[in-house]
Amino acid sequence: MPLASTQVAIVGAGPAGLLLSHLLAERGIDSVVFDRRTRTEIESTIRAGILEQGTVDILSTLPGSRVLTDGNRHDGIELRFAGEGHRIDFPSLVGRSVWLYPQHEVLKDLIADRLAAGQDIRFSHEVTGVSGIDGDRPAVRAHAVDGDGEVVPETVIELAAQFVVGADGSRSVVRQAVADRETSRYREYPFAWFGVLCEAPPSADELIYSNSDAGFALISQRSDTVQRMYFQCDPDTDPERFSEAELWDTLQARVPGTTLREGPIFQRDVLRFRSFVAGRLRRGRAAIIGDAAHTVPPTGAKGMNLAIADVLLLADALGDLVLEGDEHRIDAFADIALHRIWKAQHFSWWMTSMLHRTPDAGAFDRERQLGELRSVVESDAGKTYLAEAYTGWPFSR
Amino acid sequence: MPLASTQVAIVGAGPAGLLLSHLLAERGIDSVVFDRRTRTEIESTIRAGILEQGTVDILSTLPGSRVLTDGNRHDGIELRFAGEGHRIDFPSLVGRSVWLYPQHEVLKDLIADRLAAGQDIRFSHEVTGVSGIDGDRPAVRAHAVDGDGEVVPETVIELAAQFVVGADGSRSVVRQAVADRETSRYREYPFAWFGVLCEAPPSADELIYSNSDAGFALISQRSDTVQRMYFQCDPDTDPERFSEAELWDTLQARVPGTTLREGPIFQRDVLRFRSFVAGRLRRGRAAIIGDAAHTVPPTGAKGMNLAIADVLLLADALGDLVLEGDEHRIDAFADIALHRIWKAQHFSWWMTSMLHRTPDAGAFDRERQLGELRSVVESDAGKTYLAEAYTGWPFSR
Repeated sequence: MPLASTQVAIVGAGPAGLLLSHLLAERGIDSVVFDRRTRTEIESTIRAGILEQGTVDILSTLPGSRVLTDGNRHDGIELRFAGEGHRIDFPSLVGRSVWLYPQHEVLKDLIADRLAAGQDIRFSHEVTGVSGIDGDRPAVRAHAVDGDGEVVPETVIELAAQFVVGADGSRSVVRQAVADRETSRYREYPFAWFGVLCEAPPSADELIYSNSDAGFALISQRSDTVQRMYFQCDPDTDPERFSEAELWDTLQARVPGTTLREGPIFQRDVLRFRSFVAGRLRRGRAAIIGDAAHTVPPTGAKGMNLAIADVLLLADALGDLVLEGDEHRIDAFADIALHRIWKAQHFSWWMTSMLHRTPDAGAFDRERQLGELRSVVESDAGKTYLAEAYTGWPFSR
Repeated sequence: MPLASTQVAIVGAGPAGLLLSHLLAERGIDSVVFDRRTRTEIESTIRAGILEQGTVDILSTLPGSRVLTDGNRHDGIELRFAGEGHRIDFPSLVGRSVWLYPQHEVLKDLIADRLAAGQDIRFSHEVTGVSGIDGDRPAVRAHAVDGDGEVVPETVIELAAQFVVGADGSRSVVRQAVADRETSRYREYPFAWFGVLCEAPPSADELIYSNSDAGFALISQRSDTVQRMYFQCDPDTDPERFSEAELWDTLQARVPGTTLREGPIFQRDVLRFRSFVAGRLRRGRAAIIGDAAHTVPPTGAKGMNLAIADVLLLADALGDLVLEGDEHRIDAFADIALHRIWKAQHFSWWMTSMLHRTPDAGAFDRERQLGELRSVVESDAGKTYLAEAYTGWPFSR
C-alpha cells in the first residue's frame, strides 16, 4: 500500500477545494486534492454563476483568471410582479455589483492555475475512507475510479495529513466522519425548477426574478447566443413532458409584461432543491465546507459564494494551525462560518418564499406576498437590505 | 317611525368613526354616529396604544387632545433573541418616533372633542339594518339597546344619508352589506397572546419584543405604576389556569438576559388573533374602514394606525362626493386603501412569524428565524426597513 503524506488533504476539486489549495499554497502549505471525476467532467459542470463582489475580488487575484475579462458585471436585478418590473440597482444602493460567470469557467480558471503551480490533483480518485481525525495525524484512503465510475480495488492510496477538508459536495464522504446527523437541519420545498438552455439572444440585460400568478420564473443569461431560463414546477415533473412550444408558452406566461426572445431549446432539466446545514462543520482535524456542509435553494444565488466564504475563513485557520500550531482560529471556524451560513439560509429561503407560489398557500398569503414585494420595492431601505445580501455581506476573516 | 336625515351615517364610535366625524365636521359635513355601547363602555376599551408618528400628528390637532402631554414618545424598540437585546433606534434611522398612548385615552379625547362640537352621537344604539346603498339615498335603521344589551323594538330610528360608513369593528353589521364574502381573505395563527396587567414599575423604558426558545413575549408599559405584558400561548389556554407565580416565571423565562420587575397581576386575558381583509371595502354609497374592513395580528401594532389611515383617505373622498358630487376619489378609495392594508398585513405577519415559535415549525426554521433576526439587526438597511413600517409609512391622501 503506497503511503504518502501532505499537510492538508482536500477531498473535492470543485470551486471550494481548488481555491483552498491555492490559498494554502500562497501560505506555503502543501495539499493534495482528490476528486472522483475527470478533469473534463469537472470542467463541464453546468451551474449558475452569479458571483458576489467579494468572490470576484478573490478569484480575480488568480494568475490567468478570466472573470474580469470574460464575466459580465451585473449592476442590478429586476423583481417582476403584478405585470411590472422593478429594478434593484446595486451600485446606487450598496456600491457593489455581482458578476455573471458560469461555474465551469471558474473551474477552468482554478484548475489551470493549480496545475500551472504544480498542485497535486488526483482526478478520477474516490476517497473511500477518512480516519484518525480525533488524533493529530488524520488520513484519507482513496482509490482510482475506472471509466465506468467503479473503484479499482488494487489502486489504494493512503495519505496522511495534518488536516482533512471535505469539499466534496452534497454527497460528501468526509461529512460522514465530521457531521452530527442528529443536529443537522433540513427543509424541503414543494416545488422544483425546470431549467432550459436555449440558442437565442438575451431577453434582458440582467436577471429577471418574476413572481406571476402562474408561478415563479427566472430569466438569466449565459452568453450573447445562449440563454438560461427556469420556471417553477412540480418536483416530479418529467423533463421530456413538454414540447418546446409548451416550454416557451409556460415561460412567457410567467413574465407578463415582457416578451422573451425564443430559440431552439437544447438542454432541459428539473432541479430539485432543499435547505440543509450539517450538524457539525469541524471535528478534530477535519472540517467540511461548501455543499458538503450546507445546501441552499438556488433563488438568490448564494451557493458557490457561501462556499468561497467558508474557504477564506478556513484558509486563515489552517495557516495558523499548520504553520504555528495555533488552534484558536480553527476552534472558532464553525461558529463564524455558521453565522454567515444561517443568514444566507434565511436570505435564500426569503427570496424563494417571496417569489414562488406555494401549492398549499391560501389566497391570503398570495396577497400578502404581493404586499411584501411592494413593501420592498417602494422602500430604499428594503431594496438596500435585499441588495446587501444579494451582492454579499463582507467576508469575515 | 321617526325619519331623520344626515349627510353621512357613521356606524361605530371607535377611533375610526369618531375621527371621521371630526374630519367631516371640519369640512362642514354633518354626520350621525351610532354605537351599541355606552360612553363608559367605549372609554374603558383596553387595547394597546402604539401610535405612529402620522397618527399622532392628526390626533394632536384635536382641541383638547392630550396625546402630546400625557402620551409617551418612544424612540425605539428592543428586539431580543439569543439572550441579547438589540435596539432599533427610530429617530436616527427614519427621523420619526411612535407614541405610547392607550386606546381608551384616544377615545376619551375624541368623544370630548365631538360632544363639545355638538356632534350627534347615539350611544347605546345598535344599527340593525343598512339599505339602499346601491342607490343615491342609503339609510340605516337603528334601535336603542337596554341595560342588558337587548334591542328595544319600539325604539326604531330610520336615518337617511348620502353615504354610510361602517366603522363598527370586527363584528361589523355594515360589512354584511358591503363586503364580498368570497373574495375576503383570512389567515389563522396556531397561537394567541396571554396578556396581563400588573401593578409594578416599568421593567424597561421601551417595548421589548422577545423571541426566546420558550416562545414570544412582549414587555410593554402603561404608566409609571401599571405595566402590560404578553406571552405567546396556546389559543385554548384558560386564563385562570396559571398562578401569579407561574405567570411571572413564564414571562421571566421568555426575556432571558433581562430581569422583570414583578408586582400584583390584576387583569389577565387570552387574545386570539387572525389576519383578515374584507373582499370589498366600498359598494355604492357605503364603505367599511378600520377593524370592520381588516384585522391584523397585534405584533407590530398596526391595528388602530391602519384605521386612521383609512379615515384620512375616506374623509377626503367624502368631501369631494358630498360637497361637489365628485366621485373620483371615492371610486379610488378601496384600491388606495388596500395598497397600505396589504403592506401592513405583510408587516404584521412578518413581525409575528419572525418573533413567535410556530408549534409545527422544524428545527431548520428555528435556526433560520435567528438568522433572519441577525440579518435585520446587523444591517442599517434592515433596521430602517423595519422602522419605516413600525413608525408608519406616509399617509396617502
